[in-house]
Amino acid sequence: MFNQPSIIQFDLPDWIGAYTQGLSLMQDLDERMSFVIDASRRNIAEQTGGPFAAAIFERDSGRLVSLGINLVMTEGLSILHAEMVAFSLAQRKLNCYDLGAEGLPVHELVTSTEPCAMCLGATCWSGVRRLLIGARDEDARAIGFDEGPKMAERWIELQQRGIEVIHDIQRERAAAVLTEYHLAGGGIYNSRQRGTE
Amino acid sequence: MFNQPSIIQFDLPDWIGAYTQGLSLMQDLDERMSFVIDASRRNIAEQTGGPFAAAIFERDSGRLVSLGINLVMTEGLSILHAEMVAFSLAQRKLNCYDLGAEGLPVHELVTSTEPCAMCLGATCWSGVRRLLIGARDEDARAIGFDEGPKMAERWIELQQRGIEVIHDIQRERAAAVLTEYHLAGGGIYNSRQRGTE
Repeated sequence: MFNQPSIIQFDLPDWIGAYTQGLSLMQDLDERMSFVIDASRRNIAEQTGGPFAAAIFERDSGRLVSLGINLVMTEGLSILHAEMVAFSLAQRKLNCYDLGAEGLPVHELVTSTEPCAMCLGATCWSGVRRLLIGARDEDARAIGFDEGPKMAERWIELQQRGIEVIHDIQRERAAAVLTEYHLAGGGIYNSRQRGTE
Repeated sequence: MFNQPSIIQFDLPDWIGAYTQGLSLMQDLDERMSFVIDASRRNIAEQTGGPFAAAIFERDSGRLVSLGINLVMTEGLSILHAEMVAFSLAQRKLNCYDLGAEGLPVHELVTSTEPCAMCLGATCWSGVRRLLIGARDEDARAIGFDEGPKMAERWIELQQRGIEVIHDIQRERAAAVLTEYHLAGGGIYNSRQRGTE
């Protein structure tokens, strides 16, 4: 007899609560990125997921809307990259699947590493109007993560959908987290690459 | 004070239970696709989401593992395309984020319409080894859905990751559902396209 779950649920780890206590508005883009990079490092230290974090901010005020972290291995769901978690948290909080809906402040995604192919697509559907990126695609590939099939023209494609992209914000700090993770023997999941099984 | 949900949950509509009752193994690929296309039509009729469905099957036995449907508007989460729902249901059912893990039967994704950019990326991370596609990318674009930034070489990229792709299975039947949805005035969400806001 066929059966499948009637509900899917995933939980955020407890440390997020303390990590996000007492925050002020973050005017500065470097400050926003540092906050996200530190969350990616914390996610490793707490052993709650892979070395990635992402957050939704109100672009103009610098108010944090949501903080997502990679939960793939912890929650056993391959879609739970940090960006997907951040989008979902923000959309539930604002009760709208479109963070660019009329009447809402302009939202942005701040991500510790360039989004993979899945998360780039998801960025187009999320309603964010700006994307701030720390580590580059090649920094993730350098430690063995597969970033997926991405167009060379991806930044133009995002721009055509009204999404501004800013690269290399705290790139070295963000990439250092990836290297630390790798050197500590962190698992590279989802990396069934190019001919290997 | 900052706060965000500590849990994200989404529910499958009740009709899925009845729709998947008493199924036999589906040996035939057309039969698998018809099952999925009919689910996409049912999702419209029940007003539980957009005109898309996707399922995970055991490739060799034809056993249904999970049936996902588009839940973007119903659940208020932009990531909940049918494919993402199908991956998550199957992974939770099998208790593994990798449907291609050792010891599991080979899994495939059967989708009523070619996956969008997000879902193509997600397909690479899901662990499926075959992708069966009904309607084409251009059939979805024809009614106004944005499919996102996709590489022309995407099928080679999937193949390089060990994923076989079969196109145009029941394409006309699948595309007819999209047309019906459009003619009935169904909402085209997530379509902030190319310069328009």
